[in-house]
Parts: sequence; structure tokens; C-alpha cells
Amino acid sequence: MEAPKELFQNIIEEFIPFHKVIGFKLIDVRENFVSLLIPYKPELIGDPRRRSIHGGVIATAMDAVGGAAGITTLKHYDDKLSTIDLRVDYLSPGLAKDLICEGTIVKSGNKVIFTRMIAYHDSPENIIAEGRGVYSVSRVSHTKG
Amino acid sequence: MEAPKELFQNIIEEFIPFHKVIGFKLIDVRENFVSLLIPYKPELIGDPRRRSIHGGVIATAMDAVGGAAGITTLKHYDDKLSTIDLRVDYLSPGLAKDLICEGTIVKSGNKVIFTRMIAYHDSPENIIAEGRGVYSVSRVSHTKG
Amino acid sequence: MEAPKELFQNIIEEFIPFHKVIGFKLIDVRENFVSLLIPYKPELIGDPRRRSIHGGVIATAMDAVGGAAGITTLKHYDDKLSTIDLRVDYLSPGLAKDLICEGTIVKSGNKVIFTRMIAYHDSPENIIAEGRGVYSVSRVSHTKG
Amino acid sequence: MEAPKELFQNIIEEFIPFHKVIGFKLIDVRENFVSLLIPYKPELIGDPRRRSIHGGVIATAMDAVGGAAGITTLKHYDDKLSTIDLRVDYLSPGLAKDLICEGTIVKSGNKVIFTRMIAYHDSPENIIAEGRGVYSVSRVSHTKG
Repeated sequence: MEAPKELFQNIIEEFIPFHKVIGFKLIDVRENFVSLLIPYKPELIGDPRRRSIHGGVIATAMDAVGGAAGITTLKHYDDKLSTIDLRVDYLSPGLAKDLICEGTIVKSGNKVIFTRMIAYHDSPENIIAEGRGVYSVSRVSHTKG
Repeated sequence: MEAPKELFQNIIEEFIPFHKVIGFKLIDVRENFVSLLIPYKPELIGDPRRRSIHGGVIATAMDAVGGAAGITTLKHYDDKLSTIDLRVDYLSPGLAKDLICEGTIVKSGNKVIFTRMIAYHDSPENIIAEGRGVYSVSRVSHTKG
Repeated sequence: MEAPKELFQNIIEEFIPFHKVIGFKLIDVRENFVSLLIPYKPELIGDPRRRSIHGGVIATAMDAVGGAAGITTLKHYDDKLSTIDLRVDYLSPGLAKDLICEGTIVKSGNKVIFTRMIAYHDSPENIIAEGRGVYSVSRVSHTKG
Repeated sequence: MEAPKELFQNIIEEFIPFHKVIGFKLIDVRENFVSLLIPYKPELIGDPRRRSIHGGVIATAMDAVGGAAGITTLKHYDDKLSTIDLRVDYLSPGLAKDLICEGTIVKSGNKVIFTRMIAYHDSPENIIAEGRGVYSVSRVSHTKG
């Protein structure tokens, strides 16, 4: 499967209702990689005293880019992907500004896909959270031989 | 600190903007335990084909009840809590209906609090997701002796 | 597959060379559950100042009982199991004495098995570490129909 | 604290009894980074059919290099470090040969240190397992001002 940007834009921005609530915008998609923007808005705040974005917003974005990176490995329309587990390390509280979240395939197997994710404001040198996702995949081509 | 239900209702339902977006409702609070309701609404869907609630909604709820359970152990207004890491195992896809999420303290130390969380629709016998949260805590009484 | 104690005793105590190095002893096996004993010996120490058992010994025991609990769900000789991921929360440092480690199936699916594990010295009320394991399973009966 | 190789060689190879059982050898130590060798020997096998090294050996090595990387950030003899949690993703089964395990600091805070770890046979391009460790740290200088 190629990874036409329009298709992934639709998946990230339109197809999934909870993504629309948060307001994710696709930045980039390549084989094994997807990045998105979380445009800052006050509704995303998780700690009003620190004015930092809710950890749950970041977890949602990480699951989104990890899953979408997994989708770049699919070859067939009926191939399916679901999240087995998700882990997020919160390195720094984050600020009241836009966040970028990137997902990269670590290993894509026939049954399981491992991904890593990062979130940062301005520079990938200053990561505020890191994540790992494990996805179960059903590949039609693999099953049918 | 006692755990007056009104205080926790305010924390869970009103104080945190992203919780209001999702619509969390406090169910119960006791020492070392907090539960909340995620009332179903179509905006929470993560997979329109399966009509299941987004894993990010569940992760957000787990961080909320884990953190709130941690808050029940605080003794002083200036004690602070922040999430170190969060892990969620997605056991079943879940349905398009209300979810309950419970958080329980596993161990409350002077610097670190460990919690476990579960999410289910109708019965805690049929868990659809389990989580673990680790929180950093600053206890005024501990630091100042 | 039944879970004859002799078979699991062989798996836990004899078949796996690294288990023999540590000295695991099977305590109990039932459907979806396996427990083992880590008899204390000085070679297992991880922190000589505290004289506590190495976290790696506990992680090894958790993978062992989680995997063995998974094996109790297998129906066919050719069914296979392998660890996808393992997570351990170290709640307390532990003492220089025998440890018990228990593994329980949380969910056994056709492709993925989720387990939880605990480790304690004397009483399951005083847990010193908790774990979660996710295992990939290949079930002959499932694949071949 | 500088990171004299002899000191870390002693910690990794001699001071910790369970490391001696496995046979870890320090490869390198720099600020925020420690690597070690797990010399292959048959006692480390976890799956005799595949002849792969036990996942518990890898988990032990990851905790060792993550903790040792954390120690490179300590400034005072009485500073202390303990493992909060450890997570390992097993990407590939591994072979019956030497393994290298590397630990790198992701973030070193005043109370918590985050690390990432990798394990590979010959090339860091072919990782067989990845890990994350979170450590609690007590810094004398920080507490005493």
C-alpha cells in the first residue's frame, strides 16, 4: 500500500470522531512514519495551574500516530490493526502551545507491530513525552498465503 | 486529607478542561480509590467500523482516576502529584455504550505512587482495558519533616 | 490440554537452562494460573547493601509464570507461545529470603494472551513487585479450523 | 561524579552477585550511557528448541545498564538509585550468541530518571529487544540544598 497523504489526512483528521474533538492535523506520512500536529486550544488543558496539555491528549495522539504508522505497512484493504498496549513516559509537563507527535515503526511482523512515539513542542531535541505501542495486525496476504 | 465527594467531583468534572470535553462524571471516591463514568456519546468513537470508544478516551480516564486516587493520599494543600508513566492493555475493543473506569492505589510511597486501573461497561468481571500508572508525589510534610 | 503438575515442573525446573541457574521450583499449576518459588541464595542478590534479590531475577520469574500460565491455555502440542512484552513495577526492595511469584491469565485470545504477575515473600497481601506480560500465541486448532 | 571505567566495571562485573552468575562484562561507560556484553553460554538459554537467550537475562541486562547509566548522573557518594519500573519489548527471539546491551539516559530529573535500553547481537541496526526503565533517585545535593 502506498501512503497517499490525502488518505491518511482523512484517517487522522476526519474519519475518527474523537480526533476531530481534539483537532489533530496530519503533518507527514511516509512508509513506517506518521506525524501530526495538536494545535493548542484551552479545552486540551489537563492541569490549569501549570496550563499544560492533558496527558490523555498526548496518549491519544501517540496511539493515533503509532496506529497510522502501522497502517502504512498494510498491503490490502481488509488488513486490520488494533492496539494491544500503549505506554507513555511523561518526561516534562509541557506548555500551553502546539505539540507535534511522531510515530515510527520499530518492527513490523506478520502478527505484531511495535512502534515508538515522541511528542515535543518545537524541537525533537526537547521531547516532553515518549511512547511505545504494540499493535495486533491481521494481514490478508499472510493468512491466505 | 479527607476525600469529600464534592471536592473530587469538582476535580474530575469541572476543574480540568479536557475532562469536560469528554464528559467524565465522578461515581465514587474513597481513600485509595476513585471511579468515574464515561457517558457514551458518538464523539468518543475511535473506530467507526466497530463503533468502539477511542483508546485515548480510556487512557485519559485511567490517568484521571489513577491521579485522583493518588490525591486521596495527600495530606496538605501544597502536596503535588504528576504522572511519571501510564500503561494501558487493551483487552477487548469495547462497545458504543457507557464505560466505568476505576483507579486503586497499589502502593503509596513518600515519593512515588503506584496505581492500577480497570475499565468495563457493565460488570467488573468483563474488563475491556487495564492500566497501570506511576505518579511522582511531593509531600510537604515529608520534605519539611 | 490438561495441566499435569509433572509436565509443568519439568518446564519450570528442568527444561529451561536459565531457570536451573536461578533454581525455580514449581509450587502450583491450574488452568490459567502458575506459581513458583525462588529459593533464596546469595547469588541472586542485586543490591549487596540492601541484600535484596535482583530485579532481573524477579523479571525472569514473572516471565516464567506468565508464559507457563499461557501454556495452560494451549490445546495442541504444536501450539506456540512467545513473549511480546513484559513490564515490572518494583513496589518494595524485597529481602534476602524466599520469594513466591504467581502468574494469572487476564485474557486469553486467539492470537494474544495477557497475564498479570505478582511477587511476594510471605503473604500476597505484601506484594513487592507486580508485572504484566503480553504473549503472542499460535494455536494450531485456530489456524487450521 | 566522573565515570571511571574501573568503578563501573566493578559495579557491573563484581559487586552485584547476580551479574556474576550471568557473566556480564562492561564494554563502555560515558556520561548518560553504559553498555555491557552478555557472553553467550548455554546456561542462559530460555527456549531450548530455538536456542535463544532467556528474556529474563535480557531484562536483567537492561536493568543493569539503565541503572548504571543513571549512576553516571550521580554527584555524591550517598546519592541513591532504585528501579521504579522496567518494560521490555521482545522484537525478535535472538540467537545462541553474544549479546550487547546499551542503556542511555532519556531524562535525568531531581527525583526521577528515565532511560532507554537496546539489546542486539552484532549491529545496533538489528535490535532484538528494547527497554525502558524509570528510576527513583535521591540526590544529597538536591535535598540538602
